[in-house]
Amino acid sequence: MDAPQSVRITLGQAAELVSAILRQAGFSAAHVRTLTETIVAGERDGCSSHGLYRTLVCVHSLRAGKVSGDAEPVVHDQAPAIVRVDARGGYSLLAFEAGLPHLVAKARRNGIAAMAINRCVHFSALWPEVERLTAEGLVALATNPSHAWVAPAGGHAPLLGTNPLAFGWPRPGGHPYVFDFATSAVARGEIELRRRAGAPIPEGWGIDAEGRPTTDPQAVVDGGAMLTFGGHKGSALSTMIELIAGPLIGDLTSLESLRHDDGAGASPYHGELILALDPGRFLGADRGVHFARAEAFLAAFGQSGARLPSQRRYEARARSLADGVLIPATLHAELTTLLDDPDARLLPG
Amino acid sequence: MDAPQSVRITLGQAAELVSAILRQAGFSAAHVRTLTETIVAGERDGCSSHGLYRTLVCVHSLRAGKVSGDAEPVVHDQAPAIVRVDARGGYSLLAFEAGLPHLVAKARRNGIAAMAINRCVHFSALWPEVERLTAEGLVALATNPSHAWVAPAGGHAPLLGTNPLAFGWPRPGGHPYVFDFATSAVARGEIELRRRAGAPIPEGWGIDAEGRPTTDPQAVVDGGAMLTFGGHKGSALSTMIELIAGPLIGDLTSLESLRHDDGAGASPYHGELILALDPGRFLGADRGVHFARAEAFLAAFGQSGARLPSQRRYEARARSLADGVLIPATLHAELTTLLDDPDARLLPG
Repeated sequence: MDAPQSVRITLGQAAELVSAILRQAGFSAAHVRTLTETIVAGERDGCSSHGLYRTLVCVHSLRAGKVSGDAEPVVHDQAPAIVRVDARGGYSLLAFEAGLPHLVAKARRNGIAAMAINRCVHFSALWPEVERLTAEGLVALATNPSHAWVAPAGGHAPLLGTNPLAFGWPRPGGHPYVFDFATSAVARGEIELRRRAGAPIPEGWGIDAEGRPTTDPQAVVDGGAMLTFGGHKGSALSTMIELIAGPLIGDLTSLESLRHDDGAGASPYHGELILALDPGRFLGADRGVHFARAEAFLAAFGQSGARLPSQRRYEARARSLADGVLIPATLHAELTTLLDDPDARLLPG
Repeated sequence: MDAPQSVRITLGQAAELVSAILRQAGFSAAHVRTLTETIVAGERDGCSSHGLYRTLVCVHSLRAGKVSGDAEPVVHDQAPAIVRVDARGGYSLLAFEAGLPHLVAKARRNGIAAMAINRCVHFSALWPEVERLTAEGLVALATNPSHAWVAPAGGHAPLLGTNPLAFGWPRPGGHPYVFDFATSAVARGEIELRRRAGAPIPEGWGIDAEGRPTTDPQAVVDGGAMLTFGGHKGSALSTMIELIAGPLIGDLTSLESLRHDDGAGASPYHGELILALDPGRFLGADRGVHFARAEAFLAAFGQSGARLPSQRRYEARARSLADGVLIPATLHAELTTLLDDPDARLLPG
């Protein structure tokens, strides 16, 4: 029996609800489609922070004028192995889809290729994009800056974003090996949750305004900063992401994105870098042999007691495909209210 | 005044000493040149673990039949954006040099390119290679597996290498932004040092044979395993390195490399992956504007109290260029003895 504070709906029902709200809010058909796919995939895979809740954020951002609801991305053939897509202020997802066939073709032709998405608004996880590339048999990396909330190792000022990095490796006959993690020690929401609950945070998550380690979430929010995972190594990695998914593609750093937001609390506005590598071009006829070796390597993880990074998501996906998803009754009510009354107030602030 | 247990020599003297020993040991002129450059660069930059001491390791590996002293690398034009270099059992450095002009040309032509080095013996740090690419104005990434001494997060078996990752970003008019770190929590040598001293290791460095966290370095060495930096995120990153610098380029994983070593204690034998991205192709005429933005971002690090990752190396480099390097008298004696008596015994075990 489901708990009374939750509502179970099928993935089809979830998609209908989300797309109806987004359409009514003023998003174009193409944006509605790509947004709905990604939002439902997030809920389906058990990532509720990137799931149906995001529908409200999208509507809020559109109302606040922080995203274009009908921007048509423009694809530029930048170089033999680079495709550049100008999202023109729309969400990244439609830009990704517009560039995808070009990225795939360039990777197949050259062995490796890059896609730079510019001027996009970004709220989504990177694993759905990485999975699109592994479905084509390609190895993929994707990354982007975000908002500058994170201090580099040894510093006291927030210069870095939560800067996610995602990787995908196609596996014959199974789910790909995929990871997608923030380079911050934790998601900003984790600190926010403890702050609201008046609970302390573990050491290593943040510093206060003087750069001292703190366990007080309020001190992190009040002029302090979050920290990266993995000390100076994680900090170096996050800095790399600022550079390659910022200035290298002619787009904003996390600091510039936060300034652009100017307190509106909208999703980051910036660029995204995606790399695709074609094993067929690296290995030729030996591809099968070497991918079988990779399988033996990954199989050893299970024997050693270690879990591969996306196992939990794949398990949630299987459950959701069979049984639908369970969403909080309050969220469900908020979504259906919005559908009945398009002008309903949402998201305090 | 120098301490009496140290000997100060110029970089020229260091290069003469190293190259004379390597030549006498039987390395070809081309290998002597590339090995000497890298070994002296390590000592010069204050990385004594990759400095003159490595001369002894090279001679040991040659005597043990674990490296070819005269292999000539063969360059394959694998795909429009991939160059592959077969090191044929020689050290990676000469293979890197053979492939470098092709990698640079392919990156300039296509915007992004990859170099796969196969069948190389590897002992060197990756930052000298990354610096060769930033000197060409390119953005660079380099990585390789090593020997399987590290357990993935949650597992108890050593499946991963210490798997270094290096990145370089060219900076107008200054040293590049470069990092080069092992994805293990610490270098294996750090654990070995504590073991010999009978000192405990901090938590987070290793596990015992049952997969339990331990502070006993002996337990890590006796059937236990090292850990990655950064918990499950560092573990995921290290796993990516195994895949992209192993099976993707048709070469050995760290587990396979360790088996190939078969207890000889030689340097890892495997492949290496290097990526080069050309900012000129990503940005065209806007390159200058966006690289100035990157400079503003990196300058903010200093203002925030944070240090950039390679500062210490660059400071050591400036000192060494002015004053030469200070090496332990015991190491200096070992090196000069080897030069006088080519059959001198070295490296216990």
